[in-house]
Amino acid sequence: MKAYKELNRDELLALKADLEAAYEEAKGKGLKLDMSRGKPGVSQLDMGMGLLDALDSSSNMKSMDGLDVRNYGGLEGIEEAKHLMADIMGVNPENVIVCGNASLTIMFDSVCRSVTHGVMGSTPWCRLEKVKFLCPVPGYDRHFAITQHFGIEMINVPMTPQGPDMDMVERLVAEDEAVKGIWCVPKYSNPQGYSYSDETVRRFANLKPAAKDFRIYWDNAYAIHHLYEDRQDEILDILGECEKAGNPDMVYEFCSTSKVSFSGAGIAAMATSKANMEDIRKSLKIQTIGYDKVNQLRHVRYFKDYEGLKNHMRKHAALMRPKFEAVLSILSRELEGLGIGTWTSPNGGYFISFEAMEGCAKAIVAKCKEAGMVLTGAGATYPYGRDPKDSNIRIAPSFPTPEEMAQATELFVLCVKLVSVNKLLEG
Amino acid sequence: MKAYKELNRDELLALKADLEAAYEEAKGKGLKLDMSRGKPGVSQLDMGMGLLDALDSSSNMKSMDGLDVRNYGGLEGIEEAKHLMADIMGVNPENVIVCGNASLTIMFDSVCRSVTHGVMGSTPWCRLEKVKFLCPVPGYDRHFAITQHFGIEMINVPMTPQGPDMDMVERLVAEDEAVKGIWCVPKYSNPQGYSYSDETVRRFANLKPAAKDFRIYWDNAYAIHHLYEDRQDEILDILGECEKAGNPDMVYEFCSTSKVSFSGAGIAAMATSKANMEDIRKSLKIQTIGYDKVNQLRHVRYFKDYEGLKNHMRKHAALMRPKFEAVLSILSRELEGLGIGTWTSPNGGYFISFEAMEGCAKAIVAKCKEAGMVLTGAGATYPYGRDPKDSNIRIAPSFPTPEEMAQATELFVLCVKLVSVNKLLEG
Repeated sequence: MKAYKELNRDELLALKADLEAAYEEAKGKGLKLDMSRGKPGVSQLDMGMGLLDALDSSSNMKSMDGLDVRNYGGLEGIEEAKHLMADIMGVNPENVIVCGNASLTIMFDSVCRSVTHGVMGSTPWCRLEKVKFLCPVPGYDRHFAITQHFGIEMINVPMTPQGPDMDMVERLVAEDEAVKGIWCVPKYSNPQGYSYSDETVRRFANLKPAAKDFRIYWDNAYAIHHLYEDRQDEILDILGECEKAGNPDMVYEFCSTSKVSFSGAGIAAMATSKANMEDIRKSLKIQTIGYDKVNQLRHVRYFKDYEGLKNHMRKHAALMRPKFEAVLSILSRELEGLGIGTWTSPNGGYFISFEAMEGCAKAIVAKCKEAGMVLTGAGATYPYGRDPKDSNIRIAPSFPTPEEMAQATELFVLCVKLVSVNKLLEG
Repeated sequence: MKAYKELNRDELLALKADLEAAYEEAKGKGLKLDMSRGKPGVSQLDMGMGLLDALDSSSNMKSMDGLDVRNYGGLEGIEEAKHLMADIMGVNPENVIVCGNASLTIMFDSVCRSVTHGVMGSTPWCRLEKVKFLCPVPGYDRHFAITQHFGIEMINVPMTPQGPDMDMVERLVAEDEAVKGIWCVPKYSNPQGYSYSDETVRRFANLKPAAKDFRIYWDNAYAIHHLYEDRQDEILDILGECEKAGNPDMVYEFCSTSKVSFSGAGIAAMATSKANMEDIRKSLKIQTIGYDKVNQLRHVRYFKDYEGLKNHMRKHAALMRPKFEAVLSILSRELEGLGIGTWTSPNGGYFISFEAMEGCAKAIVAKCKEAGMVLTGAGATYPYGRDPKDSNIRIAPSFPTPEEMAQATELFVLCVKLVSVNKLLEG
C-alpha cells in the first residue's frame, strides 16, 4: 500500500469516501468497548481466585516473625511479605516497607510528606517558592496528577527506547535546585513498554542533583509482567546502583501486586535506603498503626515465593499475549507503510503506545468514542493533559477479550485512517 | 479503711514498710503484663475468624451496585459496605465513604489535606501563621500525635461526664479564627468511657465558629462497643443535628471495624455532608484508585447487616466484661475510701481512666513497669504528653485475659498505694 502522503487530492477524496462509508457501518454495530485503562480482565481476576482460599477460619494467623496478623502493629509489614515484595523488585527485604492495596497511594503519600515535612530534614516543599518534577513523556497520567495536585511544576523529558533523555535529565537535575524528583516507570514503561538500558540506570544512579532532597520515583509497576517466555526485559537494581555510586538515598522504589492478584485488593510496597526508611517512619507511625497484615499473609500463603509468583505470571502472560497480538497484527496489516502512525511492540507491561500524525490524536479518540469505543483521553500521557504534538494515544489491551480487542483495533485503525486523510486534505 | 491523708507520719511509715515488702514480693514473681494499648485480646480475634470464610474461590465477587470488587474503581466504597458503616454511625449511606483498614489514617489524611489544600476552598493551613485544635483531656494520644505532627497548636479542654466543657469550647471556637478543629470521641470516650449528653451534642451542632473551615473531628470509635445488655449509652447523630442547626458541613465523623472484626484488617469509614464529600473527592481520586473492596465485601457477607453486627458485639461484650469487672472490683476493694485515687466505670468502650493523687501518675507507671507491667505512658492522654497534674493513667483491659487482668490490677493498686504513701511522706 502506498503511503498516504504520496496520494494526490483525488485519491485522498476517494479514500475518504470509502473510509466514511466503512465508519458509518461500524457505528451502526452499536459497539461498547473500553480500552481506556490498564484494568485486568475478568479471566485474569478469575485466575487469582485461589487467593481467597489461602486463609480461612482454621488458618494459623501468626507471621514468621511471630506477629498475630489480625491485631494492631507491624508498621512496616510482616517479614515474609517483605521478602516477597523484595524479590519482585530485586532488592534486600531490609529495605522494604509493605503497605496497603495501592502503590499509587504510597507515591501520593511520599510526595505529600515531602510537601508538609520535607525530606530528611530539608525545607518542606510547601515553604518553597517553586518545586519541579521531571516527567518522561509520554508517561502515566496518575503520576502527573499527583504532582499537579500539589502545585509542582512538571517538565517534559522525551522518552527513548532506552529510557528518558539522560543528557537532559542530568543537566536539569544538576543545574536547578527546584527539581526535586522524576517520575520513572523503568520496566515496560507506561505507555510505551520500553525498559531502561543498563546505561540509563547507571546514569540515573550517578546523577549529581543540585537539590539534596531530590528523589527518583522509581515505579517498578511491571517488574514481573512479561508477555513472552523467550523475550523478557530485565533492568538493573537501581537501589544497588545508587549505593555503588555514593547516592544511597536518592531513590524511592515502588511496586504492587495490583496486576498480579487483584487490582483492588493486592498489596503494595516501597523500597529505599535505611536512612530514608527512618525518615519515612516518623510520619508513617502517625498515619497508621499498621497496614492490612492479613492480606499480606494471604498473599504469601497463596504465592508462597518468587517462583510461585513467576509461575502465576506465566499464566497471566498467556492471557495477555493474545490481546496484545490481536492489536499488533491488525496495526501491522492495516497501517504498515501508510506513514500515518507508528507504534511500540513491548515484551511486557500493560500498554501499546501509538503515535499518530501530528495534530490527529484528539480527533482519533473522538471518532472512536463516537462509534462506541472508549480510549484513554488524548493528551492524558502528558503533564497537564497537554500533548504538544497531539499525536500520542495509549492502547490498553488488558480488559477486553482478544475478540473484543480485535474488533476494537479494526475500529481504531479505521479512525486513524479517516482522521489522517482529513488532516492531509486540510493541509 | 482510713483515708491515707488521715494517717500520721508513723502510721504512714509502717504502711510504707508493709507495701514495700509486698512490692518486693510482687517483683519476684517475674510478671510480664501489657495493659498499654487498646488491643483486642486473642479470644476476641478468634471469635471473628469466620470472616475469613466469608469469601472463597467460589464466591460471587460482584457488589450490589454491580462492581467487580477485585478490580479497580469504586473510589468511595461498595454500596453494601456504605450501608453497614452508615448503620454503625446512625447516618445516611449517601454520606459515607468507606476506606481502608484504619479510621486513624482517614483522620490523618483529613488533617493533612486541610494542611496542603485547605477545606472547601479555604486557605491551606500550611500558609497560615497559626492553626489550633481543641483537645478534650484526657483524650486519645494518637489524635494528639496527628495534630502535633502537623505543627498544630493544641489547647486542652477539660472533659466532664457529659462531654467537653462546652462553655469553653463555644468561647474558643467563636473568638479565635485560628481554631480549626476539635478532637472528639463522643461515645465511651478514650480513656474515660464518658458519652456526650444530648445537650452537649446539640451545643456542638450549634457552634458558631469564627473559622469557616472549622471542623469537628467526631471519632465514633466505640459506637457499638457496649459492655452490658441493660446499660447502654446512646448519643445523638451529630450529622443530623448539624444539619438542623444550619451547620451541615461542620463535622467529619469516623468509625471502623478495627475493634469489631480484626484490628489490623478491618474496614474504616467517614461520614460527612455532600459538600464535604465533594471537596474530599478531589483529593481522594488523586490519592487512590479505590480502597480494598474485597475486604469490604468480606465484611458485609460475614456480618450481613446491623443486626448481625450487634449479635457479634454481644459476644464481644461477654469477653470484655469480665476483664473490666476484674479491674473495677479490685480497684473498689483496695482503694475505696483511701482518698488516693478515683476511676471511671464505663458502660462500654475500651478503657478505664484512673486519677491518682496529683504528681503521682508517672511514678505509679514507673513502679508498675519495674515489676513487669507495661501501662500507657503517664501523660500520654494529654497533648504533647504533658499531664499538667501528672495524675491521669489509662487502663486498657482488652488484651490480657481476665486472670491476667486481676493479677495486673493487684499490682497496680499496690503501686498506687506505695507511690501515694511516698508522696504524703514527702509533702
